[in-house]
Amino acid sequence: MGAAPVTLGSWPAAATVAPFFNARSVAVIGASADPLKIGGRPVAGLIEAGFEGRILPVNPNYPTVQGLPAYRSIADVPGEVDLAIVSVPTRDVHGAIEACAAKGVRAAVVFSAGFAEVDEAGRQAQDSLVALARHHGMRLMGPNCMGTINVRQRLIASFTYIVSGNWPKPGGVSIVSQSGAFGSYCLGLARDQGIGLNLWATTGNQADVDFTDTLAYALEDPETRVVLAYIEGCGRPQALVGALERARALGKPVVMMKVGASDVGAAAAASHTASLAGADEVYDALFRQYDVHRARSLEEFLSIGYACNLGRFPTTPALGVLTISGGAGVLTADTARREGLDVPELPAPAREELRALVPAGGLRNPVDLTGAALHDFSLWPKSLRILMQQGGCPTAVLFMAHLGRNPVFVERLRPIFEALSAEFSDRVFALAMDAAPEVRRSLEERGMLVYRDPVEATRAIAALVRFGRAFAERGAAGAPPVLPPQPDLPAGPLDERAAKAILAGAGIPMVPDRIARTAEEAAAAAEALGFPVAMKILSPDIAHKTEVGGVALGLASAAAVRDAFARIGASAREKAPGARIEGVIVSPMVGRGTEMILGVHRDPVFGPVVMAGLGGIHVEALGDVSFRVAPFSEAEAMRMLRELRAWPLLEGARGVPPADVEALAAALARLSVFADRHRDRLLGVDVNPFILHPRGRGGVAVDALIQTL
Amino acid sequence: MGAAPVTLGSWPAAATVAPFFNARSVAVIGASADPLKIGGRPVAGLIEAGFEGRILPVNPNYPTVQGLPAYRSIADVPGEVDLAIVSVPTRDVHGAIEACAAKGVRAAVVFSAGFAEVDEAGRQAQDSLVALARHHGMRLMGPNCMGTINVRQRLIASFTYIVSGNWPKPGGVSIVSQSGAFGSYCLGLARDQGIGLNLWATTGNQADVDFTDTLAYALEDPETRVVLAYIEGCGRPQALVGALERARALGKPVVMMKVGASDVGAAAAASHTASLAGADEVYDALFRQYDVHRARSLEEFLSIGYACNLGRFPTTPALGVLTISGGAGVLTADTARREGLDVPELPAPAREELRALVPAGGLRNPVDLTGAALHDFSLWPKSLRILMQQGGCPTAVLFMAHLGRNPVFVERLRPIFEALSAEFSDRVFALAMDAAPEVRRSLEERGMLVYRDPVEATRAIAALVRFGRAFAERGAAGAPPVLPPQPDLPAGPLDERAAKAILAGAGIPMVPDRIARTAEEAAAAAEALGFPVAMKILSPDIAHKTEVGGVALGLASAAAVRDAFARIGASAREKAPGARIEGVIVSPMVGRGTEMILGVHRDPVFGPVVMAGLGGIHVEALGDVSFRVAPFSEAEAMRMLRELRAWPLLEGARGVPPADVEALAAALARLSVFADRHRDRLLGVDVNPFILHPRGRGGVAVDALIQTL
Repeated sequence: MGAAPVTLGSWPAAATVAPFFNARSVAVIGASADPLKIGGRPVAGLIEAGFEGRILPVNPNYPTVQGLPAYRSIADVPGEVDLAIVSVPTRDVHGAIEACAAKGVRAAVVFSAGFAEVDEAGRQAQDSLVALARHHGMRLMGPNCMGTINVRQRLIASFTYIVSGNWPKPGGVSIVSQSGAFGSYCLGLARDQGIGLNLWATTGNQADVDFTDTLAYALEDPETRVVLAYIEGCGRPQALVGALERARALGKPVVMMKVGASDVGAAAAASHTASLAGADEVYDALFRQYDVHRARSLEEFLSIGYACNLGRFPTTPALGVLTISGGAGVLTADTARREGLDVPELPAPAREELRALVPAGGLRNPVDLTGAALHDFSLWPKSLRILMQQGGCPTAVLFMAHLGRNPVFVERLRPIFEALSAEFSDRVFALAMDAAPEVRRSLEERGMLVYRDPVEATRAIAALVRFGRAFAERGAAGAPPVLPPQPDLPAGPLDERAAKAILAGAGIPMVPDRIARTAEEAAAAAEALGFPVAMKILSPDIAHKTEVGGVALGLASAAAVRDAFARIGASAREKAPGARIEGVIVSPMVGRGTEMILGVHRDPVFGPVVMAGLGGIHVEALGDVSFRVAPFSEAEAMRMLRELRAWPLLEGARGVPPADVEALAAALARLSVFADRHRDRLLGVDVNPFILHPRGRGGVAVDALIQTL
Repeated sequence: MGAAPVTLGSWPAAATVAPFFNARSVAVIGASADPLKIGGRPVAGLIEAGFEGRILPVNPNYPTVQGLPAYRSIADVPGEVDLAIVSVPTRDVHGAIEACAAKGVRAAVVFSAGFAEVDEAGRQAQDSLVALARHHGMRLMGPNCMGTINVRQRLIASFTYIVSGNWPKPGGVSIVSQSGAFGSYCLGLARDQGIGLNLWATTGNQADVDFTDTLAYALEDPETRVVLAYIEGCGRPQALVGALERARALGKPVVMMKVGASDVGAAAAASHTASLAGADEVYDALFRQYDVHRARSLEEFLSIGYACNLGRFPTTPALGVLTISGGAGVLTADTARREGLDVPELPAPAREELRALVPAGGLRNPVDLTGAALHDFSLWPKSLRILMQQGGCPTAVLFMAHLGRNPVFVERLRPIFEALSAEFSDRVFALAMDAAPEVRRSLEERGMLVYRDPVEATRAIAALVRFGRAFAERGAAGAPPVLPPQPDLPAGPLDERAAKAILAGAGIPMVPDRIARTAEEAAAAAEALGFPVAMKILSPDIAHKTEVGGVALGLASAAAVRDAFARIGASAREKAPGARIEGVIVSPMVGRGTEMILGVHRDPVFGPVVMAGLGGIHVEALGDVSFRVAPFSEAEAMRMLRELRAWPLLEGARGVPPADVEALAAALARLSVFADRHRDRLLGVDVNPFILHPRGRGGVAVDALIQTL
């Protein structure tokens, strides 16, 4: 919290993070002669990878290290040093950083552990390290991190041994991981799957450069097409939001693994609605809000990243399916529908053309080429062209079973796919086949995706289309609403009337009301507002008015109002003896409508989070609520509402007309901007109930509660 | 439909299906000299696999085929023939089967296509083939199928080329697939993953031996530990149910891919509740009912099958997690909780023991061994023992990253796991690591599961535990209730009163009622039943009484009853002019409670399917309903109710006491037995509403509708 908001398109840290990935000279402080030791690994790795810059081992005890001249200290290194790797005992790190600063080094990867991850003394040592670096305008990666790699530049500032002897293929996938071991494991698996890689970073203790800095840098790198990101927690939520917005603006997908679902968020927050949100639900909401694909497994993480590396993000959800097995075709179509894709039926003329090709096959889409396609390979491009051109499908899954295992078949298929790829360079073709690695690689080089499982292929295409639509549809159009200038929140507890006035000032419709301090004032107020009316006790000390008998509804006459005034006052005095009672609020009864609950709670990470749900059982017993991180637009509020399981009730059901969801979305978006404006002091807001009328007739809040820090 | 129910434990077809998997002599009719031709493949396959029985090519044109003596006809073959493979032109199949029958062959695999899959003439030819075979007591697999394999016996009665040159490893996984191409693809992938296989079959047109016969046979085979089954549709639902019950009794898991989600079920059925069920929802319900794991992807299919092949099905959902990466540990724990496993915190003494081993690590479970476990391998067995013995975990995931790629490490790990496997032979250890195939194999031989993805490993363990609990908990205890003898349903439409009487006779509690034909009779009935009462028009021609103004509720006096009688009659005569009106039903008002809807619809495949849901918006607008195939037990009805999203409302919420769900489950189970008894004529039942009272006070149906064919 408290970080300055990120300026989109001009990420200020980018230039300072660059040397971790772009360096012509790399010094290794604590370089070991043993290539298996942590201090020896980067030297060995840089040599082995064929790094074209200068490799500069620093070790006072040896004249050479792994065959390279070694320097007694960094001060002795001739010329400029772009990047230093620090692999020395914990107690020597401070001195090493000082020496680097004196040398004018602007970036250091610190492998050494024993800092904040260990104890309070370690935290202090780490803080002083950061202070030192900042004083000299130097950036630190780590400490206690595994460092960075730039695949194209053959730059490895890491002690991971996973790329040893097997350097990855350059490509568009960048990996940013808080965890070194996990990041290293992903790197190895991605490389083994032949996924083309760009940047890799593990951020360790994140004392200075953190996950978000690195994510933002990786996104700006022109070679990055997609970022695979692994996080456990987030230290600078607003910067993260900024980076995710930037990713969307750049049209670069972020695939995220976030681990550590916990109840910290709920326990730490205090307002009524907070108990409904665990921290993980907030991350989930954030990822939906910013169109991040949240991967739940390592295989999914790599599978979606692999597909994104193609760099094609269609916006039309129409999938063509070609198959040699009817069953696999149906499986693919089932999956497509479950994932939100269409499998459009081919028009009649297209079916007639196909019938001429495969008389015995299925013709509607899925197109079942039957075993005939194992013999006549021209059936593949011919029918695929029909699916693309007449079926309007920008994407296709081709189930080819074991074709990729037969070298003769492969030789005949290769030119076919080469031609197809040239003809349809903006389409996405996923071949579901078992193929030898070299076959897969050669097809991939021709722009094909190759999966074993048609289900996985279909899920990946669905993810590409979701990204494509997000990039196309969202952006500037989805800005949060602009509110009139909002005064600061007053100090101390707020009573209902004050809360309603403040929220009304933020543009959230509130039922009109008047304060009455006597029975006669109440009757007069009711006459003025019009019968029937509702009456509620007004006290800054009473949050739950019903529980103290402080509410009366549907009062239809002056006499009823006078009676109720006396009853409410007596009950409240009895049940809440110490409470300051300021009078009674009189307001007109709101017509029938759908009862909604809107709320804000303060997430310990992301600050104000807005909630919406239907009143009654839906929120209370069934937990059917939807969240978004403030602030957001009306369009985003509509997406939020559609996530409610009870959404069909708002669309109109059982003869009830559709509710005015646009009015509700407007109120939610304004509430989110209000909450963002007051993020420093706002603990929670409950707008309960918000009565939503049928479409075109708006909605109005009947009660509101604001809690401040 | 109409098949005789299966007798458990004595599957009548088993003996006759045996020759497809157990044959000492195999004749190939239409054997080709070309091993790449369909008729040449099985000869080549049997030779290549090293089949130890007699291989008997039949071909009138050659003296030898692929180096073996060939026979002019099957009649010329000396000695007995256990299994014939028929690979001849369509028109010659009938003659080939006749010749086989004359020779006394009891089983034939028919590759030849051109039968029911093509046209009506083909269907007739197929029917006559089956008639011929049955006349001679012979079983047919196919036609238009890819045949069968028994891995241990090296028997291949298939033209699949997928095992050519690469015979699978024998094991406990049997694969039964309706689709040949899909079955063949699975076979190849399973073999490549080193999964131990037993039987394999593709059933093609299923003219005689079908998917269910084959599934049942595979389950009874003692070498089968798990069946991976792929279906598109089911021809003998009751036999399938019998086979699934048998699988549970044998303690053998069935992992099922069912493709082809469609709306056939809903369209074909007619009762009110039917519109809420698509055929796929019924399959889904069936699979939950019989503890089948429904796989949604090919990778999941193989992954769960692989784990089941271990043959260990723990019943305690406690998972231990050991890891060299904190992040991977948290990821595994997150997944475990999402999948219904516990990750129990280790007791304090166990944590102290661990602290002595890994001072810097996480100690609660997940146990983070940190990078220390890359150097000191004894940490793995020591900490695993603590997790097993003190943590009470019968299962564990060990995240070992790339350890499996380092031959030195592997050599040192092997004896450790060998000892662990001997010590904990009933536990399930899944190593999440990247390993070379031979490393994986050697660890698997020591009883370990090896996955790349800790998430996949955890999901597989969760499936094993679900199976374990199903095998342990369900069986005879879960028998459907026994009802008193139920008379046949009367012919013609049934009015409400008849429907209620029939369902009351099946033990479903019904509100008492009386018929009144005059206003005075109505008043007298109300006096006798006690005020307030409800009144409803009684007519076999009026299904929806409210729509014709035929209902009056809460009538508190004789005068109100007389008024309502006149009003109801007039309204019904006006709005349903032709309807036969038999009077008015008078019944006491039922106290407040939870409104439930129970129903039965006729699924085109599985016959009567029972539905339950909460009344009002839950069923109508939100589609929150749960299904089971009739008949089922009360325990099964409880599982069914727990699947409702609205289940928390039945458990008690917002100050409402818990509902009498046991009474509801009893009513559902009885309704299921009733529906099963009348499966031939019953079109649908609606019990709506069923008013459920608080726990211990039962429930009662207020209205009922029975529709018959």
